[in-house]
Amino acid sequence: MAPTLRIGMLGLGNVGAGVARLLEQNRELIEHKAGVGLTLSRALVRDPRKARDLGGIQVELVSDPEAIVEAPDIDVVVEVLGGTHPAKDYIVRALRAGKPVVTANKDVMAEYGAEVYAAAEVGGVDVFFEASVGGGIPIIRPLKESLGANRIQSVMGIVNGTTNYILTKMTLEGWDFGVALKEAQDLGYAEPDPTADVEGLDAGRKLAILSSLAFLSRVQPKDVFTEGISRISARDIEHGRRLGWVIKLLAIGKELDGAVEVRVHPTFISAQHPLASVNGSLNAIFVTGDAVGETMFLGRGAGSFPTASSILGDVIAAARSKTSPQATLGCCCFVDKPIQDIQSVETRYYLRLTVKDQPGVLARVAGALGQAGVSIAHILQTPDEAARTAEIAVVTHRVVERQIRSALAALEAVPDVGAVESKIRIEA
Amino acid sequence: MAPTLRIGMLGLGNVGAGVARLLEQNRELIEHKAGVGLTLSRALVRDPRKARDLGGIQVELVSDPEAIVEAPDIDVVVEVLGGTHPAKDYIVRALRAGKPVVTANKDVMAEYGAEVYAAAEVGGVDVFFEASVGGGIPIIRPLKESLGANRIQSVMGIVNGTTNYILTKMTLEGWDFGVALKEAQDLGYAEPDPTADVEGLDAGRKLAILSSLAFLSRVQPKDVFTEGISRISARDIEHGRRLGWVIKLLAIGKELDGAVEVRVHPTFISAQHPLASVNGSLNAIFVTGDAVGETMFLGRGAGSFPTASSILGDVIAAARSKTSPQATLGCCCFVDKPIQDIQSVETRYYLRLTVKDQPGVLARVAGALGQAGVSIAHILQTPDEAARTAEIAVVTHRVVERQIRSALAALEAVPDVGAVESKIRIEA
Repeated sequence: MAPTLRIGMLGLGNVGAGVARLLEQNRELIEHKAGVGLTLSRALVRDPRKARDLGGIQVELVSDPEAIVEAPDIDVVVEVLGGTHPAKDYIVRALRAGKPVVTANKDVMAEYGAEVYAAAEVGGVDVFFEASVGGGIPIIRPLKESLGANRIQSVMGIVNGTTNYILTKMTLEGWDFGVALKEAQDLGYAEPDPTADVEGLDAGRKLAILSSLAFLSRVQPKDVFTEGISRISARDIEHGRRLGWVIKLLAIGKELDGAVEVRVHPTFISAQHPLASVNGSLNAIFVTGDAVGETMFLGRGAGSFPTASSILGDVIAAARSKTSPQATLGCCCFVDKPIQDIQSVETRYYLRLTVKDQPGVLARVAGALGQAGVSIAHILQTPDEAARTAEIAVVTHRVVERQIRSALAALEAVPDVGAVESKIRIEA
Repeated sequence: MAPTLRIGMLGLGNVGAGVARLLEQNRELIEHKAGVGLTLSRALVRDPRKARDLGGIQVELVSDPEAIVEAPDIDVVVEVLGGTHPAKDYIVRALRAGKPVVTANKDVMAEYGAEVYAAAEVGGVDVFFEASVGGGIPIIRPLKESLGANRIQSVMGIVNGTTNYILTKMTLEGWDFGVALKEAQDLGYAEPDPTADVEGLDAGRKLAILSSLAFLSRVQPKDVFTEGISRISARDIEHGRRLGWVIKLLAIGKELDGAVEVRVHPTFISAQHPLASVNGSLNAIFVTGDAVGETMFLGRGAGSFPTASSILGDVIAAARSKTSPQATLGCCCFVDKPIQDIQSVETRYYLRLTVKDQPGVLARVAGALGQAGVSIAHILQTPDEAARTAEIAVVTHRVVERQIRSALAALEAVPDVGAVESKIRIEA
């Protein structure tokens, strides 16, 4: 047994510094669990001369990735650069060179999972990515291992803290989207360009990773249907509240009849659902398996120390795999299941539209939906006397996406009916 | 690599039958993850001739444990007998004989964990017990592994479904304890003799297991302070509701100043706390670590299939450890921390007492508490004019148990004050 394993870290930003600090802070218990000493030997940075506060931790700063990726004096590689390039290339090369890799990189794992696993197989080592989804929440390993005997039926996750913060503020404080986004940006929860979060792309990448593990079939970001939260209004949230619902940006993966359904969109869920009270920047993943039933994992989805918690949990596993080689669990995607086209996905819908306040308009709306084969569960008309318009909120029974789309087109052609302002999916 | 691993199962009751069925149902994915074929070769039962419905699964039934425990043609042992004897003896012998053991046995792991781990070390194999706490919820492995880099500060669990069902009914339906217990018994959630559940003993054993893993120090059932729910009244629940609290039987483990505090008792928690909405027979464990912050694991804490989910997840790990031997993670209890005496534990308290409705009685109650060094946060008097008594509810600031006990003794000696009817701890 090697007395000490040498860690090379690619990147030393917020998360990387958290890893260095946490290793120092809890060194005794981490090394005990790892079964070996752990040295953070080297870290790749853009400018090694830049001053850094690492709390007195000694680590050699290098600007050349070759000093880590395939270096003979590095045993385990931790990748916290983020983004696909050049991170993917480094990960693949380190794995091929026989170094276990621990990564927080959702982009690489979602987009290039197959290539990464192939490299791990070549190198005879494993790749660990607990930190790539849900920050500090243990979800990757529970899905692969503890729940490994289940046929997973669905995963539903709140996996983006920015949008959950915004929707929480809109729900609890009555803020508009724009106000909540601005506040999130001021607090540093949202990027100056918030597109990846707000439009569901970040959640989509995480869903690709979760779904690949859950359904044992490769799911890629391009397979995921995404719809963002920028069109959600305070009015919809208020209607939802009256109907006993809460709105969340959910990343939903399901297996139905052998096909995988993957979608990210604003979703009304029952206020009683365990996900409904997951507020602010918390994340949670709700998993349903044929044996375990319903289970949920909740915690901090981001932040330097929560992410470092997952990374160092993986480093412990990587260290153990290094000192006593075992067959790697490897890629779980051994079945190749088709992806369900979003047009064929079936859900219930909430619709909101503004109509001219004319006799018979409610009947015409109901008639148009009925003719298009959309069955109505509830319909509610509220007049706005000043504007001489009325607002109509409709809750449908289950209907496939293709049908609701053609129904909406038909609806907008009805005299006195304006645009359909909201179309929000409902999960039981 | 052996083409097939042979499993010997000790016990074939409700859980054992679930394991057999689930293995059959999800054989393909389980074997893929295990990396080998799995055969349920033999099961220990009291009467092999008794008819059983195992859904057509073939398994040799034996009444002699020797056909499994040290049998050369058994590779992995699954123990689902329950109870300490003879289960502990079988587990220890199988481990010493070099067979990985998967067990659902909270009694053995809580009481004899040290002996079991020692046997595992002798045999060079690991013992797996995900099913011993929280049924289908992945919690043992996440605590040991994914959260392994954290110094765990506290675990707070709803780990007994029977009492959670009773308290939920009392809270949501306003039932009395006796009515709710009777219903739980009729539904089969509670045993004819409900003592182990109702008095917190079952939760105490699970807390001993969780705390040993969390604090890396052996905690035994005898170390755990337990107080049951049989004295909780609808009146207390109603008072709590007005104060924004919900009552739960919590298993609480904390490390403070190097000492471990372990206690099971009815507890008021904020209605906003994630544990507050864990209702019915659900279980949840709320874990706070220095890096991860707050995290929660929720799911079915009992039942044949949820428990089988955890057992077969462990069987997969056991199979992998068998085909590619690795250093076992082994016992985590490498520090020996003292157990905090319950008398020195500090919490806030809710007290309820009935007094004679006399002028000055409220002042006398407040005075007696103040003299005993108990600082009052809220105090509320409600007269019962018919009975010429008044009810006084008191919420204290933080106070150590020793002090509250002497304060209560002093209080009961005050003229016109009757017995203190309720004393319920409050967690933030």
